[in-house]
Amino acid sequence: MNNISDSVIFPKGSKMPEPFNKYFTGQAYLEMLVSGDKEFNCPIGNVTFEPGCRNNWHKHPGGQILLVTGGRGWYQEEGKLARKLMAGDVVKIPANVKHWHGAAKDSWFVHLSIETNCQAGPARWLEPVTDDEYHNLD
Amino acid sequence: MNNISDSVIFPKGSKMPEPFNKYFTGQAYLEMLVSGDKEFNCPIGNVTFEPGCRNNWHKHPGGQILLVTGGRGWYQEEGKLARKLMAGDVVKIPANVKHWHGAAKDSWFVHLSIETNCQAGPARWLEPVTDDEYHNLD
Repeated sequence: MNNISDSVIFPKGSKMPEPFNKYFTGQAYLEMLVSGDKEFNCPIGNVTFEPGCRNNWHKHPGGQILLVTGGRGWYQEEGKLARKLMAGDVVKIPANVKHWHGAAKDSWFVHLSIETNCQAGPARWLEPVTDDEYHNLD
Repeated sequence: MNNISDSVIFPKGSKMPEPFNKYFTGQAYLEMLVSGDKEFNCPIGNVTFEPGCRNNWHKHPGGQILLVTGGRGWYQEEGKLARKLMAGDVVKIPANVKHWHGAAKDSWFVHLSIETNCQAGPARWLEPVTDDEYHNLD
């Protein structure tokens, strides 16, 4: 298992803080590169997932863009097959589409998260991705 | 001189298209990762500068964020000392601040460019950074 968490471009940051940590299965880390201020209206976080870690199903009222910088992971929209992700991949998540993202079982995973149209409001967090759902991905 | 242009995370893309190419000294490359559509309101480009390449002085009516992914380069605001940039650096460029960015003399340079508050309008391009200004940076 590689240790990509020590070799990424942007800082790994700290363990995912509350209240967000409770919407993750496994340990994730967050470094906010740009805050959610009213000057730029463009919150940007660097999110690192340990192997097997993923977030709950959720929706962004204004959408979200993921830019994958390292490791291997997954992105899935409700009712669709999961998409494998690796460095260089870009995910454009439309507003209010129920989805989750996270690491592969056997790899760290790192992406930049850019909240778009953030004036629409914060993410709405839903139920976890079950072990059955997650372990049947491959 | 390293050849970082072949080893970056996101695609290098094509030679900077017109009308933008005329606002650069030297050769730059552009891959748009996210277009400037009305769904996300968040144009994201991957910009690669060959050694010595830099853009003209310019202003963004809505601001811009740079996320440096490779190489070494410079960012300068009018009336201030230039800031050296390397992978992992984040530059938050306020609206209407006159500035330029580009590669070091002896290195390729790669950054993501995120246009913020893009409804404020496109960049206003100004005069080139002269050779005197550029070669006196170090």
